[in-house]
Amino acid sequence: MQSAPVTKYRPFPPVDLPNRQWPNRTITRAPIWCSVDLRDGNQALAQPMSVEEKLEYFEMLVKIGFKEIEVGFPSASQIEFDFCRRLIEENRIPADVWIQILCQCREDLITRSLEALHGAKRVIFHLYNSTSPAQRRYVFNAERPAIRDIATHAVSFLKSRMAPLVAQGTHIRLEYSPESFTSTELDFALEVCEAVTDIWQPTTAEKIILNLPATVEYATPNVHADQIEWMCTHLTRRDRTIISLHTHNDRGTGVAATELGMLAGADRVEGTLFGNGERTGNLDIVTVALNLYTHGIHPDLDFSDINDIREVYERCTRLEVPARQPYAGELVFTAFSGSHQDAIKKSWDTRKSTEPWDVLYIPIDPADVGRSYKAIIRINSQSGKGGVAYVLEHEFGYQLPKLMHKEIGRLINDLADATGRELTAPEIHDAFQQEYLQRTAPVVLETFKTTERNSTVKCDAKISIDGQARKLTAEGNGPIDAFVRALAETALPKFEVLSYAEHSLGKGAEARAVSYIQVKTERGHTLFGAGVDTNIELASIKAIVSALNRTLAKR
Amino acid sequence: MQSAPVTKYRPFPPVDLPNRQWPNRTITRAPIWCSVDLRDGNQALAQPMSVEEKLEYFEMLVKIGFKEIEVGFPSASQIEFDFCRRLIEENRIPADVWIQILCQCREDLITRSLEALHGAKRVIFHLYNSTSPAQRRYVFNAERPAIRDIATHAVSFLKSRMAPLVAQGTHIRLEYSPESFTSTELDFALEVCEAVTDIWQPTTAEKIILNLPATVEYATPNVHADQIEWMCTHLTRRDRTIISLHTHNDRGTGVAATELGMLAGADRVEGTLFGNGERTGNLDIVTVALNLYTHGIHPDLDFSDINDIREVYERCTRLEVPARQPYAGELVFTAFSGSHQDAIKKSWDTRKSTEPWDVLYIPIDPADVGRSYKAIIRINSQSGKGGVAYVLEHEFGYQLPKLMHKEIGRLINDLADATGRELTAPEIHDAFQQEYLQRTAPVVLETFKTTERNSTVKCDAKISIDGQARKLTAEGNGPIDAFVRALAETALPKFEVLSYAEHSLGKGAEARAVSYIQVKTERGHTLFGAGVDTNIELASIKAIVSALNRTLAKR
Repeated sequence: MQSAPVTKYRPFPPVDLPNRQWPNRTITRAPIWCSVDLRDGNQALAQPMSVEEKLEYFEMLVKIGFKEIEVGFPSASQIEFDFCRRLIEENRIPADVWIQILCQCREDLITRSLEALHGAKRVIFHLYNSTSPAQRRYVFNAERPAIRDIATHAVSFLKSRMAPLVAQGTHIRLEYSPESFTSTELDFALEVCEAVTDIWQPTTAEKIILNLPATVEYATPNVHADQIEWMCTHLTRRDRTIISLHTHNDRGTGVAATELGMLAGADRVEGTLFGNGERTGNLDIVTVALNLYTHGIHPDLDFSDINDIREVYERCTRLEVPARQPYAGELVFTAFSGSHQDAIKKSWDTRKSTEPWDVLYIPIDPADVGRSYKAIIRINSQSGKGGVAYVLEHEFGYQLPKLMHKEIGRLINDLADATGRELTAPEIHDAFQQEYLQRTAPVVLETFKTTERNSTVKCDAKISIDGQARKLTAEGNGPIDAFVRALAETALPKFEVLSYAEHSLGKGAEARAVSYIQVKTERGHTLFGAGVDTNIELASIKAIVSALNRTLAKR
Repeated sequence: MQSAPVTKYRPFPPVDLPNRQWPNRTITRAPIWCSVDLRDGNQALAQPMSVEEKLEYFEMLVKIGFKEIEVGFPSASQIEFDFCRRLIEENRIPADVWIQILCQCREDLITRSLEALHGAKRVIFHLYNSTSPAQRRYVFNAERPAIRDIATHAVSFLKSRMAPLVAQGTHIRLEYSPESFTSTELDFALEVCEAVTDIWQPTTAEKIILNLPATVEYATPNVHADQIEWMCTHLTRRDRTIISLHTHNDRGTGVAATELGMLAGADRVEGTLFGNGERTGNLDIVTVALNLYTHGIHPDLDFSDINDIREVYERCTRLEVPARQPYAGELVFTAFSGSHQDAIKKSWDTRKSTEPWDVLYIPIDPADVGRSYKAIIRINSQSGKGGVAYVLEHEFGYQLPKLMHKEIGRLINDLADATGRELTAPEIHDAFQQEYLQRTAPVVLETFKTTERNSTVKCDAKISIDGQARKLTAEGNGPIDAFVRALAETALPKFEVLSYAEHSLGKGAEARAVSYIQVKTERGHTLFGAGVDTNIELASIKAIVSALNRTLAKR
């Protein structure tokens, strides 16, 4: 890296806050939460959610307990508009939930947004414009007064056009964001917020939401808290204002910035589940909520089945919750160190359940979020790259189909439970071979031959069942199909082939092939078989026999 | 979640710090860094690093610029002992690098550790014992004086036994950790640290390192800073002490806790690359270092090729750097929002290179860490689940072999560059089909038949080359092998099959098969071909033809 960053980068200027109070405080209550998953989160996805996915996600947010949900940017695209309409027209918004929509400070977009909101009961209309010096210089090429006027003009325009909606029973609150607030001179941010408040005329019953975003995180989190406290103490109508935080995570301190911002006086927190969002992400609401919970403050959000929430999240966003993500990551309730495992066991066994939670190395009872503690490293389907599939692929070259991971994971898990310790790679390999590749009883494949004519394949096979030889023949559109049809004429259990996968083991045309076949039995069970052979065709046939023998073993 | 966590969890007690100074400060210099990747990081891996991997990792840490590296716990296992010996005996430790070893406060382990260090030039001997009330109660069943004596006895013992090593030229410094410091009553932590210092007798030239770990993160980061400042102001020999931080990330605020701890007076920071470590991980040193860099302070660590470092890290730890990890994650220099893209472009184009860095939405010049900014969503091999492989699998059912991801990624990347916009899923599918499945010129497969005898397969094929028909026949150990041998007798380019993979498309024995074949040409290029057919055998043969035609197209 260049040796003198001092010429290219600057320290972040400190805030003049002589009577700083926030470091003396502790958090005593949950903030108002606002989920921006469907807007800020969704816009940061390589493949944005479909409408169906958004609907499922919205329902999940409601179930968790969010009362304010930003549902999109309806004036930005037809898809966003339509989603908003579906929520309203299909009565999907519970009576106590506010939907929030984002809108730039432009008349046409405000008009279009109001159309999207027709028939809604509770709406937060979120207007924003960017206020920082770099934005003023590069994007708007405008001075402070012009920037302030963009905001005030939009608020006036909204106020003048929303009357018909209000008359029809829509309750509208205003959220205003000086975007890039944390990069904006505090006096100017204050000036714009005051000007907007002048026009909106909030009351103590109908407060204005001033959202002060760290659109990009540029400072340490204590400076963010200083900025928030400065605003809280300088606003003239603090009693008529809800101060909202919206942190990002460019410096890895988004959670801290929100927590210290709460100490500094903020009332409300915007963020997403697991921190999805542009670049390094938005604030992770799950972490902040559960941080409160572990200090004895109920967050008013329900994460009692975090695995379920995670499943919906991963499916809809096509992102993974990282293995070390607080509370939700795969590895956070796993102890690898022996001394940690020992201390956990001792404290868990000794503590009385009526006492406050103080199990060592585990800051939250995993059961409170629907999870469990793993003392032994369970190399299983859930443990991602550390798991069975990883070991079998990287140590032994088997690329198991994804659907097979769960099945082999369960097998190895049971084995780990039985032995009571971590399994070595060769032990896992042995177990895989015994369970799949060496399944040659009671059905044994003696010989197998195919002949092809046009696109039909005829197979002639010799098998033995419990030692009794049997000749089989049938036709099909390929060797697997022909063999399955041939087997169907015996008394062996019937099954259907659902999928197969095959790859070379080792390099070159002369390497062996391994085949994985997924079958569904008459009783509706699905399971895999696997076979290895130098001949690609025989590998699949052996895999069928393996599946068949595994079916018989389970009867 | 249970409705009254207040009965189960407690708020974290505040620190009495009437003259708090740290919020008034800014960070002005880099701390002393100590990497604990090879100890705390390594012990948290499902599959710990091999000795070879550790050696490679150690070299990388040295190259980055670490001068203090914790290399393990040599008294805990033979593997750890041997690694320490190899570093020393093979002269792998540069003269200005201190190796650090961890050791419990037990005589036999101290003796064994000293054996491991024989011949080392610069050593930090790191002793620890746990001091918190819960550890005292559950693990040690001992009162404060007994816990303090564990520490002081160990330090005395070390002092009495290290003379021979010192006489042979080993420079030994002491690091002492009251493990679980942040859960320990401050007055007791101070008592133990003072008692240890009394025995060690540090000087201003030969300071003692007191490491104050947040072994588990229980409090907001401002409380951590209060604890550190309290210790810094209460130690009687602050001028002879290096205060070291060691934060974990259970509340998602490990980076913030370290940064605020630095404001509070700490001199030294322990952590790992990308935050690998128990549960939610250790402190991520990369983030803290680059946070300093973006404020104009050189961290004295070199992350100018972060992709390279990430590659070694992922290979050795078998963990992935999450997509949204600050500075290093795949998505952090990608802008998805159109307005962000626009602002980035305007500020990038307008700013003068002599001015401080202020490109909007990008807090660091990606070039400074060897990365680049992506304005368009490049659906490519690097974009993980958001990429080409994901789309082809989840939208169209193709499970491409991993080695093929890069090839198809490059193809789609070039296409995205050419069109200048994001590609849709059908466009990606079309491109894949055109490039691989519809590669039927100049070589066309007319007919293909095999006959089997014992384990030999004979193939009879009819192909045409630029319209000219040609009959081929050969024998091999399978259809692919036979066909490749048959082709070898033509004037077509020679190639070798490196690997193949095959799976069903759709469900049932009558579904189609898709086959992927990787070949290596005479000129040493490797590339893939792919084929689809209802017949599994024909799918592979088509894949070979596809690879052959692609080779010819590239000539």
